[in-house]
Amino acid sequence: MEFQFYMPTRVITGEDCIRKNKDAFRALGTKAMIVTGARSAKANGSEKDVTEALKLADIEYVVFDKVMSNPTIACVYEGAAAARKAGADFVIAIGGGSPMDAGKAIALLAAQDISEDDLFKGQYENKILPMAFVPTTAGTGSEVTPYSILTNDKAQTKTSIATPLLFPALAFLDGRYTKDLGITTTINTAIDALSHGIEGMISVKANPVSDVLAKESIRQIRECFKALKEGSLTAAHREQLLYASMLAGVVIAHTGTTAVHSMGYSLTYFKDIDHGRANGLLLAEFMKFTAAGRPDVIESIITAMGYKKLEELEKDLEELLGAKEAITAEEISKYSSIAIKAKNIGNCPVVPEEKDLIKIYTESFGLSV
Amino acid sequence: MEFQFYMPTRVITGEDCIRKNKDAFRALGTKAMIVTGARSAKANGSEKDVTEALKLADIEYVVFDKVMSNPTIACVYEGAAAARKAGADFVIAIGGGSPMDAGKAIALLAAQDISEDDLFKGQYENKILPMAFVPTTAGTGSEVTPYSILTNDKAQTKTSIATPLLFPALAFLDGRYTKDLGITTTINTAIDALSHGIEGMISVKANPVSDVLAKESIRQIRECFKALKEGSLTAAHREQLLYASMLAGVVIAHTGTTAVHSMGYSLTYFKDIDHGRANGLLLAEFMKFTAAGRPDVIESIITAMGYKKLEELEKDLEELLGAKEAITAEEISKYSSIAIKAKNIGNCPVVPEEKDLIKIYTESFGLSV
Repeated sequence: MEFQFYMPTRVITGEDCIRKNKDAFRALGTKAMIVTGARSAKANGSEKDVTEALKLADIEYVVFDKVMSNPTIACVYEGAAAARKAGADFVIAIGGGSPMDAGKAIALLAAQDISEDDLFKGQYENKILPMAFVPTTAGTGSEVTPYSILTNDKAQTKTSIATPLLFPALAFLDGRYTKDLGITTTINTAIDALSHGIEGMISVKANPVSDVLAKESIRQIRECFKALKEGSLTAAHREQLLYASMLAGVVIAHTGTTAVHSMGYSLTYFKDIDHGRANGLLLAEFMKFTAAGRPDVIESIITAMGYKKLEELEKDLEELLGAKEAITAEEISKYSSIAIKAKNIGNCPVVPEEKDLIKIYTESFGLSV
Repeated sequence: MEFQFYMPTRVITGEDCIRKNKDAFRALGTKAMIVTGARSAKANGSEKDVTEALKLADIEYVVFDKVMSNPTIACVYEGAAAARKAGADFVIAIGGGSPMDAGKAIALLAAQDISEDDLFKGQYENKILPMAFVPTTAGTGSEVTPYSILTNDKAQTKTSIATPLLFPALAFLDGRYTKDLGITTTINTAIDALSHGIEGMISVKANPVSDVLAKESIRQIRECFKALKEGSLTAAHREQLLYASMLAGVVIAHTGTTAVHSMGYSLTYFKDIDHGRANGLLLAEFMKFTAAGRPDVIESIITAMGYKKLEELEKDLEELLGAKEAITAEEISKYSSIAIKAKNIGNCPVVPEEKDLIKIYTESFGLSV
């Protein structure tokens, strides 16, 4: 039993937890830069709760709200320059995976000079602005991971910065900020979290603690499937999904992801398919591929979710995700050649070859071979 | 769902994990003070593994090996003075709960001046020497808690210092260091860990994450009951107990303990009954007391351990602990009057009065009333 467990983020949950814990910001610094997107943090009340808490705690702040979906490298350099110019000594990221992942890179780049060429190489000094994160979707788990996923146009995919420096100091989980999310986004993000839990159990880096947390996470998400299908989520479901998404984040902080994520990135990069949906479309076929060599792992996932057979999960995913996008054999061939180079492939206990990825894409989209 | 989760210690497990991760010490400082007891760390190989790792990592060290069982306040002040004199900038504690709890207080007192009168008041500056912990028993979980429990002669009991400052930076879990422990110590420490998991689930501070970890912990410990009874523990059992003990430590880091610990402290202070054994002797009767008001919580514990009825756990504990110490009605009366003042009493969902504590002691020791 050789493993490490490390997750230093203080997770604070509950209704109005930001204002109730406003003093926690004081330990991070004296001037915050709020990193967020243009709209949703304003619409769902999270940005207002943060700025009010900061005012009450007598902390200055500036706002950088230029983070787009699937943030680019240019965006995080721009944010870092803005943080330096403003003299911000800590970062508060509010939003889904995009503002949170951008917030991490901005906190890193504001504290030290790293060239674009070195950004993904992992050789950093031990310096970063402290961070507080407020997830407003329940999917990415970025608030408790050491990863920042950015759009990497040179590699034509998404690439991750991975260093323990990127763990936020604080994560505030208030389910109210997710209550106005549309059902499609709610489903896609929930499936992203589910995929983290499932891939975390499949990963060769799984450990006893990550497995316990993954089982709890995927069980909680399954409990919300009915409400997700019916579009009848209560405040309690919203909290439950945010909790499960955080747990799944702790899981992948230890296990990384697998071929599902590597393959999904192309669907997002080239076809603009939402990240969580992309994972969900590929998940069942990847599980079938893995079951051939490691039936025990897949059975343990299925059992934890309360299913008897993988086909039951597959059916639920199909109902949740609906009609699939069209894809060509040429596209599949191109995406497979990119995905096979991703480092997550190494986390698969049954290591796929390029032809296996082609088969998984093909079967996932119901393409006749 | 309002809760916090925070456990910043990096847990590193596995055979020879100290030497394999020797570079991790470098992040803590340049001169270590090793805090340990007089004998066991030398006998079980842990101290040698630490000193060899430090030599390989080119880190100086001094050894303070004067920590006794149930360490006193005088002992930790002496250790802190020694650390200052030696110019140590980090602490490595090796041993059971006593050296680890002493190590925490020493790291705190070496970094700041705190008078004996203020030691348990919780008003500290944000300064402490970084710590690495090597548990050599599988019971206390101190390697992942923010608590230091010291013998408090003024209060005639054990009293805890509690501050997030006390979380060690590193915890090394190598089951080999526990393999020469006698069966009595092995049982007593395993029951201590079990008590942490069970009390953690009973505590009013239990949260969804602590409950998941507690269930995993108590399930693992139950799996070792047969080997504990037969004295037939394998290396795998030793690892399993050390893992379960760490998980239970994470649990009480969030939940605190309950009346069991408050009551057990008197048995240790006045009658020299080992800490884990003291908890074990009281556990079943306390669970019965709690079941009267919160049958759901007790049932959830029993189910997680794979039992059908509380009486099955009670029988196992009796077999493990053997013949009980003699105790008088006068002693029970005195201990109850001390325990009722302990702050852990406030963690009980069914809050006991002094007469309830008297009844729990009385029934636990089979005294006729």
